[in-house]
Amino acid sequence: MCSVEGAKKLAAYQAVDNHIKSGYKIGIGSGSTVVYAVDRLAQRVENENINIICVPTSFQSRQLILKNNLTLSDLEVASQLDICIDGADEVDCNLNLIKGGGGCLLQEKIVASCSKELIVIADYTKNSSLLGQQYKKGIPIEVSPLAYVPIKKRLEQLYKGEAVLRMAVNKAGPVVTDNGNFVLDWKNFDQSLDWNKVNLDLIQWPGVIETGLFINMAKKAYFGMQDGSVKVQS
Amino acid sequence: MCSVEGAKKLAAYQAVDNHIKSGYKIGIGSGSTVVYAVDRLAQRVENENINIICVPTSFQSRQLILKNNLTLSDLEVASQLDICIDGADEVDCNLNLIKGGGGCLLQEKIVASCSKELIVIADYTKNSSLLGQQYKKGIPIEVSPLAYVPIKKRLEQLYKGEAVLRMAVNKAGPVVTDNGNFVLDWKNFDQSLDWNKVNLDLIQWPGVIETGLFINMAKKAYFGMQDGSVKVQS
Repeated sequence: MCSVEGAKKLAAYQAVDNHIKSGYKIGIGSGSTVVYAVDRLAQRVENENINIICVPTSFQSRQLILKNNLTLSDLEVASQLDICIDGADEVDCNLNLIKGGGGCLLQEKIVASCSKELIVIADYTKNSSLLGQQYKKGIPIEVSPLAYVPIKKRLEQLYKGEAVLRMAVNKAGPVVTDNGNFVLDWKNFDQSLDWNKVNLDLIQWPGVIETGLFINMAKKAYFGMQDGSVKVQS
Repeated sequence: MCSVEGAKKLAAYQAVDNHIKSGYKIGIGSGSTVVYAVDRLAQRVENENINIICVPTSFQSRQLILKNNLTLSDLEVASQLDICIDGADEVDCNLNLIKGGGGCLLQEKIVASCSKELIVIADYTKNSSLLGQQYKKGIPIEVSPLAYVPIKKRLEQLYKGEAVLRMAVNKAGPVVTDNGNFVLDWKNFDQSLDWNKVNLDLIQWPGVIETGLFINMAKKAYFGMQDGSVKVQS
């Protein structure tokens, strides 16, 4: 039996070993699974002397890169990346993702969109057939602070469910993202929605900065499984 | 002969007189023409004692509301507005707009999208048959600072023309919008583009926060003309 942490490590290590080559410019995702990917990148730099450049997707991810003495860059310098390795809150059977539980969805989607391929790493609890079956905290939607109320109302009216302003811990008030925005977590939605259509609609609402729906973006997902194996979905 | 300033005033006064009723919640646009609209609103509050609530679209617009002793509100309190009155940098024959010369496009589009109708006020120099004929500073695109280079490159590659990072005056560095973002001014584009399609495409690029293309949003435009008349387009 493999723990959830063990499963994250398995997936991260295998993805890094299979996909990263010397000379690569790499988007470094955010979250607890990415910690293992950066560990493995650092080992490979140390052991194999591979030459890589890392572009972060959040404050957390930037700190990971720096702490591991990897070469830090950004999209101003490296505007086209070879690969992005990132976690996900949920991955459905079509490789559509819910992301943004850590509030880094905008930067994650930007970096992924500048990468030739997006490889997802996750543990077995993130794998589902329909979005919303596993991840119960809701689909994160990053919104302009001044528009959170009209967007919340419109979302609940048009698509039902409940859009909850994500509140901060250790401060009175809402979570403010690395980009100065708020996050609405959209819960109790209809799981049979056409997510491509929903995403395309939401993204057109003025004040919706980005959605946590990553549709047709991931090329492959590595899931660390309970039995200690890694399941690859593509 | 009417000056450009005189033409702005004519359009603004007539729009306010024709559309504003007591009890209205009003989105207040930004820019030099809106100054006259707020003047007229203040006169009508003073003279007719109409009761209105004003929601700004920028720092400038908020200051105008306060300076004129109008009732200030926001979309958290008043999430559905009766009308929005705003200027434009250019208005084509289908009432499609270029906005954002003043860098307030995101907030302007948010407020307009929360209003039952958007009424445009402008002088005769803003009226054109095809977008780009009149306004030569380019279509403003508000972008996340960390994505401005990849977005600039993608835009120039896919749609040609030139996307120029808008630079600040009185500080070294780029213009930072009221929402903490950068502005790319997209110049020398093909004027025969299908703007609905272009806007829908751009808005899906991660890191594009909002475009200055206001397509199918305006209900009516008031143009102050050189001969002292007001031309209404709907």
